[in-house]
Amino acid sequence: MNELDYFFNPKCVAVIGASRDQKKIGHVIYRNLAEGDFRGRVYPVNPKTEKLLGRKCYASVTQIKDKVDLAVISIPADFVPKALEECGRKGVKCAIIISGGFKEIGNVKLEDKLEKISKKYGMRVVGPNCLGVFDPESGMDTVFLPRYKLGRPKTGSIAFITQSGAVGSVVIDWMSRKGHRISKFVSYGNAVDVDEADLMEYLVNDRKTKVICAYFEGVREGRKFFEITKKIAGKKPIIILKGGVTAAGTKAVSSHTGSLAGSSEVYSAAFRQAGVIQANDMEELFDFARTLSSQPSPKGNRVQIITDGGGFGVLLADHVINNELKLARMTKETVDSLRKKMPPYVILKNPIDLTGDADVERYQHTLNAAVKDKNVDMVGLIVLLQVPRLGGEIVDTIINAFKTSEKPIFVISAGGDYTEVLKKTMEDVGIPTFSYPQSAARAMKVLYDFGQEQL
Amino acid sequence: MNELDYFFNPKCVAVIGASRDQKKIGHVIYRNLAEGDFRGRVYPVNPKTEKLLGRKCYASVTQIKDKVDLAVISIPADFVPKALEECGRKGVKCAIIISGGFKEIGNVKLEDKLEKISKKYGMRVVGPNCLGVFDPESGMDTVFLPRYKLGRPKTGSIAFITQSGAVGSVVIDWMSRKGHRISKFVSYGNAVDVDEADLMEYLVNDRKTKVICAYFEGVREGRKFFEITKKIAGKKPIIILKGGVTAAGTKAVSSHTGSLAGSSEVYSAAFRQAGVIQANDMEELFDFARTLSSQPSPKGNRVQIITDGGGFGVLLADHVINNELKLARMTKETVDSLRKKMPPYVILKNPIDLTGDADVERYQHTLNAAVKDKNVDMVGLIVLLQVPRLGGEIVDTIINAFKTSEKPIFVISAGGDYTEVLKKTMEDVGIPTFSYPQSAARAMKVLYDFGQEQL
Repeated sequence: MNELDYFFNPKCVAVIGASRDQKKIGHVIYRNLAEGDFRGRVYPVNPKTEKLLGRKCYASVTQIKDKVDLAVISIPADFVPKALEECGRKGVKCAIIISGGFKEIGNVKLEDKLEKISKKYGMRVVGPNCLGVFDPESGMDTVFLPRYKLGRPKTGSIAFITQSGAVGSVVIDWMSRKGHRISKFVSYGNAVDVDEADLMEYLVNDRKTKVICAYFEGVREGRKFFEITKKIAGKKPIIILKGGVTAAGTKAVSSHTGSLAGSSEVYSAAFRQAGVIQANDMEELFDFARTLSSQPSPKGNRVQIITDGGGFGVLLADHVINNELKLARMTKETVDSLRKKMPPYVILKNPIDLTGDADVERYQHTLNAAVKDKNVDMVGLIVLLQVPRLGGEIVDTIINAFKTSEKPIFVISAGGDYTEVLKKTMEDVGIPTFSYPQSAARAMKVLYDFGQEQL
Repeated sequence: MNELDYFFNPKCVAVIGASRDQKKIGHVIYRNLAEGDFRGRVYPVNPKTEKLLGRKCYASVTQIKDKVDLAVISIPADFVPKALEECGRKGVKCAIIISGGFKEIGNVKLEDKLEKISKKYGMRVVGPNCLGVFDPESGMDTVFLPRYKLGRPKTGSIAFITQSGAVGSVVIDWMSRKGHRISKFVSYGNAVDVDEADLMEYLVNDRKTKVICAYFEGVREGRKFFEITKKIAGKKPIIILKGGVTAAGTKAVSSHTGSLAGSSEVYSAAFRQAGVIQANDMEELFDFARTLSSQPSPKGNRVQIITDGGGFGVLLADHVINNELKLARMTKETVDSLRKKMPPYVILKNPIDLTGDADVERYQHTLNAAVKDKNVDMVGLIVLLQVPRLGGEIVDTIINAFKTSEKPIFVISAGGDYTEVLKKTMEDVGIPTFSYPQSAARAMKVLYDFGQEQL
C-alpha cells in the first residue's frame, strides 16, 4: 500500500478543530465526514468540547485509542505545530493541514516547523493553506464549502491537483455542473511536504485515474518535478495549466503564495521535453482531459467533417488546418455508396454538408461510412440540433457510433436549452461534446500528438 | 424612411407559399406572423388553398387589394422568379426569399433572374437561401425553426447579420439561452441584392443598435464593403467573425455557398484598416459585443484586479499583460485608507487578494476605492461565489457599482449552478459577465482600443 493512499482511503480519521460552531471550517469538515458518504471511522478533536453531534469529542489526538490513519487539522496557525507534533507521537500516518497563515503571508518560520515535524515522524503532510482532498468513491471530502454553493462531481477517471484552493473550488463546482467526472482531487496549498511531483507519481499508479490534470503557479522543486514527469508522462496523459506566465503574473504569484513562479518559457520548454501537455485555459484543460480519458488514439491525422450547417463546417475545416491536421479524402467507393443514399444537393466532400434538412438517417449513413473508410482517422461531427427534421434520436445514433467506433468521434453542437439537454445526455454516458469548432480541433490535435508519442 | 425599414417594420406582409401542411416552412412562417408578436397585417398566398387558419388565402400576391410592404417567399426554387415578378408588378417594396436551390447548388442562371427582377422594379430582396429577419421589437420573424428547438432572444442593442443560416440559428438560440439581447437579426444567404454592406450601412443609422456583429465567409463586393465599413466603423463598433480563414476552409466555402472566400490575410488587413474588430470565435464575438454595448470607454489601459481567489488573480494579471494592457497602481491614499478597513492578510497590491474569507463589505470597499482612484482606468472584478462568507447580496453591490461607475467593470465568475444563477441575474440587467480571465482581458483590450479610435 502506498503511503499516500491514506489521504484518499483512510480507515480512521481525526478532525482536529472539529467545532460546534456551524460557521467554523472544522465543523463543516467533521460533519461532512461523519454524516456524508465516507464509510471510515471519524473522531472529533477539540479540547473545549465534550460532545459533538452526539459523539464523544477528544481533547487531543493522543487520547484516541483507535489507530488513526489521517488527521485533518483546521485550527489557528499558531497552534498547528503542537497538534501536528501530537499526531506524530500518536503514529498518525498522514495529515491534511487546512489552516492558512503560513508562508503565504510571510510566516516562513512557522511553516518550517511543520516541515521538521513531518520529517521527524515520517508523516506525510498535505497543505497548509489548502482545501485538502476529495475522492468521490471513498467519500473522503475535506473541501469545506457548502454543497449548495459548491457541487461535487461524480466518480470518473480524471484526477485534478491544484496549488490554488480558489481554482480548485471553481473546478470542482464547474465539473459537477457540466457532468464531468473525477477520480481524485487534491488542493495541496503551500506543499510543505507532499507536492505536485509526489501526487503525480502517486496518480500515475492509481488504477482509477486515466488522465492527470494540474493547476499550479510554480513547482516546489524544479528538478524533482521534471524528473518525475519525464518518467511518467508517457504512461498517462498529464495536462497542466500554469498560472503566472507573464512577468506581472509572476509578481502577483510571489505576493500570493510566497513562491517564485519562474519564467514561463522555461516551464513551457520543460513541459514539452517531459511530454506534458500544457493547456492555455481551464476549458481547454478539461476539453483535453475528457478527450484523452474517453477517446481511442487515432492512427493518423486525417479528419472527416460531417455537418448540417455549412458555416460550421467551414469553421472546423479552418481549425483542423490551423492545428496541423489534415482534411481526410474518403475513398471513391465510400463516396459512391453514400451518393446513392443522399439527395443530390448533399455535398460529399470534406466537409460533408448534409444541409439544413438533414435527418437521423443521413447522419447514420455518413457517420458509419466515415468511421469505416480507410482514409479517415478521426471524425468531426457537427450536429446543429435546431434544424427541423432532426429528432432527438440522433443522440442514440451518436452514442452507438461512439461506443463501437475504434476511431475518435468529436461531437460539436451549439445552441440553447434544447441543445444543452441533448449534449448533457451524451456527456452523461462519457462522450465529450464541444460547443465550438476550434475547441474540438485543438482537442483532436492533442489526442493525435499523445497517440504519436505512444508509438 | 429607409427602404430597408420594410424588412423589419412592415405594415403589411404577404407570405407566398403559406401552406396547410404543418411541416412546410411556409406554414411555420405564416403561423408565426399571424399568431405571434407581429402586429401588422398578414396575407397568406397559395393557389392550392382557399383558407388558412380561418383566413382567406390568395392565389397570387396581385390579388391582394391591400398595399403590401413585404413578401416572404417560401416555394420551390423554379417558381420563385414568377412569384417575385408578381411582387414587382404589385408594387411590393421588399421581399425575403427563404427558398434554397440557387447559386449555392450551381443554379447561377436562376439566381440571375432574381437579380434582374429586383433591379427592374427597384424592389429590395434579402436571400435567397436564408432564414430572413428577426426583430424582437416589431415581432417580425421569418426564422422558421420551432421555438422549442430554437429560442428567441429579447430586445436589446446588439445587431447580428449572417451569411450562414446555420450559424444564424445557433447564434439566436445561444443568445436566448444566455440572456443576451438583440436589436435586429438578418440571415441574408446568397445576397442576390441586399448584402452585408447594405445591412451595415442601414444598422449604423438604426437608433436601436449600438453594436453591429456579422458572420460571413466572403463579401459580395469587396470594394463596396470596405468603403462602407470605413465610413461607418468609427460611429459604431463593427465586430466580424469570418469563416474560411485557411485555404482548406476557403475551399469548403466555395463548395458550400458558391462564393469565393478570398485570402484571410487580405481580409484581416482590410478589417484593421477599416476599423473593424475581428473576433476569432463566436464566444469572443459576443464577449466583445456585450462589452461594447454596455460599458463606458476607459480613459486609459490601467487595470486594477480585485479577487477572492489568488490563482484567478494571477491568471487575469497574465492575460492583462498579454493583451498589452497595464496593471494599475492605486494611489498611496487609496491603499492607506483601504488598509484600515481590511484584515492584515488582505494583499493590497495588484491583484488585490481579498482571500477566501472575503465578504460583501470587503468587496464594496475595494470596488468603490478602485473606481474612484485616479490611477485606475478599468476594474477586473473576480468574484468566486463558492467562498463561505460571501452571500448572494454581492450581486446587488456589483449592480450598483456598475450602474454608477464611469469606468468599465469586468466581472469574472466561474463555477456551478449557484454561480450561474447569480451570473444570469447580472446579465439580465445588462452586465456582461465572463467565465475566464482571458476572455475578460481580451474584451478589455477591444474596449480600450475602440475608445482610443474615438479620440
